[in-house]
Amino acid sequence: MRDFSQDHRWLSINTATLRKSRGADVPLPQILDLCAARGVRAISPWRDQVQAAGLSTVSKLVRSHGLELSGYCRGGMFPAADAAGLKAAHDDNRRAVDEARELDAACLVLVVGGLPGALAGKAAHKDIALARSQVQDGIARLLDYARTVKMPLAIEPLHPMYAADRACVNTMEQALDLCDALDPQRTGALGVAVDIYHVWWDPKLQQQIARAGRDRLLAFHVCDWLTPTRDLLNDRGMMGDGVIDIPRIRGWVEAQGFAGYSEVEIFSTQDWWQREATETLDTCIQRHKTVV
Amino acid sequence: MRDFSQDHRWLSINTATLRKSRGADVPLPQILDLCAARGVRAISPWRDQVQAAGLSTVSKLVRSHGLELSGYCRGGMFPAADAAGLKAAHDDNRRAVDEARELDAACLVLVVGGLPGALAGKAAHKDIALARSQVQDGIARLLDYARTVKMPLAIEPLHPMYAADRACVNTMEQALDLCDALDPQRTGALGVAVDIYHVWWDPKLQQQIARAGRDRLLAFHVCDWLTPTRDLLNDRGMMGDGVIDIPRIRGWVEAQGFAGYSEVEIFSTQDWWQREATETLDTCIQRHKTVV
Repeated sequence: MRDFSQDHRWLSINTATLRKSRGADVPLPQILDLCAARGVRAISPWRDQVQAAGLSTVSKLVRSHGLELSGYCRGGMFPAADAAGLKAAHDDNRRAVDEARELDAACLVLVVGGLPGALAGKAAHKDIALARSQVQDGIARLLDYARTVKMPLAIEPLHPMYAADRACVNTMEQALDLCDALDPQRTGALGVAVDIYHVWWDPKLQQQIARAGRDRLLAFHVCDWLTPTRDLLNDRGMMGDGVIDIPRIRGWVEAQGFAGYSEVEIFSTQDWWQREATETLDTCIQRHKTVV
Repeated sequence: MRDFSQDHRWLSINTATLRKSRGADVPLPQILDLCAARGVRAISPWRDQVQAAGLSTVSKLVRSHGLELSGYCRGGMFPAADAAGLKAAHDDNRRAVDEARELDAACLVLVVGGLPGALAGKAAHKDIALARSQVQDGIARLLDYARTVKMPLAIEPLHPMYAADRACVNTMEQALDLCDALDPQRTGALGVAVDIYHVWWDPKLQQQIARAGRDRLLAFHVCDWLTPTRDLLNDRGMMGDGVIDIPRIRGWVEAQGFAGYSEVEIFSTQDWWQREATETLDTCIQRHKTVV
């Protein structure tokens, strides 16, 4: 397992982590400046942040700072209530692939979606098997396109508490079953993003990380699970503040040959987003070196 | 699949559902009176409610009302930080078995526990594999005793969002692996409580219900998953108000030969516990007949 204690060369900052400073929005260019100033070599930006700043502006900044993208957040949200919705989702995912390509991201992260309408509070139906079938079809179709521009797709299994409204792929095993179905040759075009927040609880985690192997481990995200967790979405903890044995899981991933970035992704309305972004970033660096 | 539309003979009320009326505690004897007055034939009471009213008082009331217990809530919480804690947990679980026996419960439901200390906000360690090992040892030991008094133990896999602090058994597959290990002869002494709130999201749910079979399906609990869910513990929905396809899951359970009660268990600080208990109970009966 790599030694992270001496420097933060393998730290990536998911830009949602620094989305807010003292409760106010931080524009993406400012986040990139902050990261570059501290010698962070990689980021993973969100589409809404890129759109707000402008893709070409972000693309230039990424290059001028010499930043890599450990991933691009995010494609997905495949299920829909009708054919028009399915087509709109596909078109939007193609654009996400193009943006990821323009930014030279290591992969496009897929948060696959849940029951159509559920995120807005009113599910169109209760058939999660149908949603899962639409996810498989949607990934299959997107994969055809992503292969042509050489953009790997990383399915991110989300915690089961998001099964209804954000992602109906909820375990590593399920995500890898999709990979086996859609890319049986293990070409590297399709894999998984392992976010420990979503999968740390899984009794089959070690086994499924081994099953994934190096070919399918496309991204590794860290934060921590707090007790108590006060909000289902925006109460993620800073590494070391919760109950996840992060080095153990990183060890499993690296035992498969994963040698990429450890990406910090923290949504925290009440805590970290209320602090100065510089404090949050400095803490990410310090914890990366001590508890990841 | 049984027809529930004509009456509520297969409805059981988990007494936590009626724990509060307009925000005020409702004593267990009053809950039993309410249920009996509406022709509810079964309940599943919580230990703290039984203790507050007195075991012998509750036992007499259960008999005088002719109520059955679809289960007794709850044993478990096996993991501990030291030997004294493990012994205390075992002793308490033996008492829970005795109480369940006194009340002639169909089973003792086991919420197995998570990382010791986590429920109080400070986990003693981060080794969930150790906690799981202590759970297996704890159930094995309790099972030896429970067999002697013929009280079936029902492992309740809890939603993965409770893995840290309430139960580190989080899928049907994991619970059934424990059953296979500890009661390979399928004697009926050990099984699972299927609470749809905890397992509805699981892509392997149908497969694992079939694996459980009639011998190991000891209890069936219903409520609903709301979108959004505002609280990790106490924002369960009334059947029909959320996204779970309840009849589909009940169909899978009954296809295995399960013919017991459908037990309503709703924790709802902001909604149902703020209403009159009579309104909550009447709604349970109505929804049992229409959407379960």
